[in-house]
Amino acid sequence: MEMPVPKGSVLNRKQELVARLQAVLPDEAVIHEPHETRVYECDALTAYKCAPLAAVLPSSTGEVSEVLKICHDMGVPVVPRGAGTSLAGGALPTADCVILGVAKMNDVLETNYADRYIRVQTGRTNLSVTGAVEEENFFYAPDPSSQLACAIAGNIAMNSGGAHCLKYGVTTNNLLGVTMVLMDGTVIELGGAHLDAGGLDLLGVVCGSEGQLGVVTEATLRILRKPEGARPVLIGFDSNEVAGACVSDIIKAGVLPVAIEFMDRPCIEATEAFAKAGYPMCEALLIVEVEGSDAEIDMQLGVISGIARQHNPVELRESTSAEESAAIWLGRKSAFGAMGQINDYMCLDGTIPVSSLPYVLRRISELSKEYGLGVGNVFHAGDGNMHPLILFDANKSGDLELCEQMGADILKLCVEVGGCLTGEHGVGVEKRDLMQTQFDAVDLEAQLRVKDVFDPDWLLNPSKVFPLSVTQSRREDAA
Amino acid sequence: MEMPVPKGSVLNRKQELVARLQAVLPDEAVIHEPHETRVYECDALTAYKCAPLAAVLPSSTGEVSEVLKICHDMGVPVVPRGAGTSLAGGALPTADCVILGVAKMNDVLETNYADRYIRVQTGRTNLSVTGAVEEENFFYAPDPSSQLACAIAGNIAMNSGGAHCLKYGVTTNNLLGVTMVLMDGTVIELGGAHLDAGGLDLLGVVCGSEGQLGVVTEATLRILRKPEGARPVLIGFDSNEVAGACVSDIIKAGVLPVAIEFMDRPCIEATEAFAKAGYPMCEALLIVEVEGSDAEIDMQLGVISGIARQHNPVELRESTSAEESAAIWLGRKSAFGAMGQINDYMCLDGTIPVSSLPYVLRRISELSKEYGLGVGNVFHAGDGNMHPLILFDANKSGDLELCEQMGADILKLCVEVGGCLTGEHGVGVEKRDLMQTQFDAVDLEAQLRVKDVFDPDWLLNPSKVFPLSVTQSRREDAA
Repeated sequence: MEMPVPKGSVLNRKQELVARLQAVLPDEAVIHEPHETRVYECDALTAYKCAPLAAVLPSSTGEVSEVLKICHDMGVPVVPRGAGTSLAGGALPTADCVILGVAKMNDVLETNYADRYIRVQTGRTNLSVTGAVEEENFFYAPDPSSQLACAIAGNIAMNSGGAHCLKYGVTTNNLLGVTMVLMDGTVIELGGAHLDAGGLDLLGVVCGSEGQLGVVTEATLRILRKPEGARPVLIGFDSNEVAGACVSDIIKAGVLPVAIEFMDRPCIEATEAFAKAGYPMCEALLIVEVEGSDAEIDMQLGVISGIARQHNPVELRESTSAEESAAIWLGRKSAFGAMGQINDYMCLDGTIPVSSLPYVLRRISELSKEYGLGVGNVFHAGDGNMHPLILFDANKSGDLELCEQMGADILKLCVEVGGCLTGEHGVGVEKRDLMQTQFDAVDLEAQLRVKDVFDPDWLLNPSKVFPLSVTQSRREDAA
Repeated sequence: MEMPVPKGSVLNRKQELVARLQAVLPDEAVIHEPHETRVYECDALTAYKCAPLAAVLPSSTGEVSEVLKICHDMGVPVVPRGAGTSLAGGALPTADCVILGVAKMNDVLETNYADRYIRVQTGRTNLSVTGAVEEENFFYAPDPSSQLACAIAGNIAMNSGGAHCLKYGVTTNNLLGVTMVLMDGTVIELGGAHLDAGGLDLLGVVCGSEGQLGVVTEATLRILRKPEGARPVLIGFDSNEVAGACVSDIIKAGVLPVAIEFMDRPCIEATEAFAKAGYPMCEALLIVEVEGSDAEIDMQLGVISGIARQHNPVELRESTSAEESAAIWLGRKSAFGAMGQINDYMCLDGTIPVSSLPYVLRRISELSKEYGLGVGNVFHAGDGNMHPLILFDANKSGDLELCEQMGADILKLCVEVGGCLTGEHGVGVEKRDLMQTQFDAVDLEAQLRVKDVFDPDWLLNPSKVFPLSVTQSRREDAA
């Protein structure tokens, strides 16, 4: 889908733009030939595609500042890009934009174990942050599924979570400070390796702002000591609702597992066919993992198994060895791949209060029947972060549109029960038109005004997050 | 100290203001006689005093909105007030302002144990939030020393912490959503009982904004299950530096006590004389408390005692009973009162990276000698939140000024080592002129712009947080 080109476009000043960018960056860091820019035409939401005007790959905060000054001066929109793994189109270009990729900026700048932080350039991948500290037995907690590829820059933009965020929180709970370049090239520092400072906590508003307030080039991240041990239990139920009620009771009991993962029958079947993890064939599976010393693990699993037994599980399998633990996780970790083998799917991302799990799962299965599209549920149940996978046939005309409509209905359902449109994937282009179901006009206006002050010309990652009608009128006002 | 009265003051339109306020509130909720308004002339930073023009005590979000509309319309500054326990002058009036007190708004609106939250009006006191859920064995974690008196409104304004925030985080980590009234009377909702929603996380920027962005009238707070048990250990050392190094090593080892409290010799002596807690006479004491099951407590205290022994403690006393635990905490909880018995003191509040504790403690004792003023240190060491108490004689001319100068030097030292000006007391009037030592002009400008969009006329809690020169010129620009 092509994005609309705003008024006053620089499409016909490309030559001047490229020359100015080449004056501040090495030649190989300025990408402008059409066959090269096509590499950046989409992120992991591949249904939307649009090649940018140019792409740049700066190597330092100073170079980022120079690039932004030029774009600001020429009124050229800038779309920041981490590793391009966004499932919401967060790094989707506009035809008149410069893609600002931070991939080259992946250095570790400082590690400090006594104060438990690491400072990195934000092009560094999520997993390699842990890689830099694991010899000292530390780790970086947020663990999105894409952690092998995704960059810290994107994690900060989307406030990414992961399977373990039930215990450790999402990116915002593990981010201590950033260096950020504003659209006019100004470099600011927010937060640091200390409790939050006086004045306004702009770090919080930057985390999850989807690259619309500035380009974050360096980040100070909390690192944690690795737990002594971890052990999962696999629990099978004969209905989604009962499994949902069990999750709700575990949370209510106040034990804090590191993860409570949920899979329903379609996912279990696909996964078993694909990965042969030895899962029982039932309606719903929970994988609950706890961490700590052996004594602590025993105690926590005792409480969890006790709660599970009250819900008449068809299976309750506590791991007794590293091999059994690996087998329990194998299926869950293969689930997305397995579903992809049998069908095209759209992966949704909404959150709900945990107590609404049984109701929401029932409504999703009703919607599945109404629309005639299958749904597989595999998600982080402990914090109510749902990932329904809607199955469709990309080669069947109209199926994608039907799927998108059903997706919107499910996300509206999440908002209705007191949840929200996105847990960890962000809004991007995918959900921008649903923002008004979540926010009243006055709530949205409060956000827009903050965007206004950071980026008065609305040049940074335009046409995302907010409904297109709003974004367009804002950009026209600015122009 | 009288605050400067800005141009265009409404001091001579008081009659009109009072009449308009009385039209939207019950008579007893509008306080305007000089002998009555004097009640609101200061908060817990009693060195600064100024009676307001009037004070109002609304009972609902709707009434707050009506009050703000009137003040906005007439250009009257508004100073929001929780329980008035601010140690930084956060609720200090200006002579031309209306104090907006939320004390009457203290209802519990909803409790939900399955989703682990409580929704309250923000006039409710901190401790009575736990009071509302403790029968079900839950609690609200942030626990400022003033928790018996202080209001949730003030906790949100200052992003308050407490002894237990090492493990549970400060207010921002336990706040899920708010209802907030903007200066023009608009009511907005931020966050809710779910993971953070799409768009900009304005909840984070509101928490800690010291009542300058809006008046928070309702809050959704995370509640937690009470731990099974808790046990402290008391460790004595023969120097501050060694005690500081021990704290740093405990944090580095990755165990996470609920609290690591630090007291130095002047505090130990004053406390023993006052509370007779049976503390050993030594240079520095740590109280380290861990929580969990008995097995978990044993394991954690084993690690902590092992680390402590490497630092040659002069005393290591693990509690073996509830009585011993109470005795260990008795001294710490009496420390501020005990210091107040023997001297006037100024309580500072800065944070530093934990690894800098030994250096900062040494520098503070050097400064104490340079200025000829005693210092007692009693603070939350685990997260580097220092509370040096500078001793002075309020009746001795020039002593308070000397004390303020030394306080500024200590806070600058905190910033120098990579820490910040305030951990949990906020900036208020107390530290506004030090903000430029923490923030560059561009960093500060980013904050000021956000303040601009929420409150373009700079009417909400004016003359606080930012340096007076900046605030004044901003208000004149707005006028």
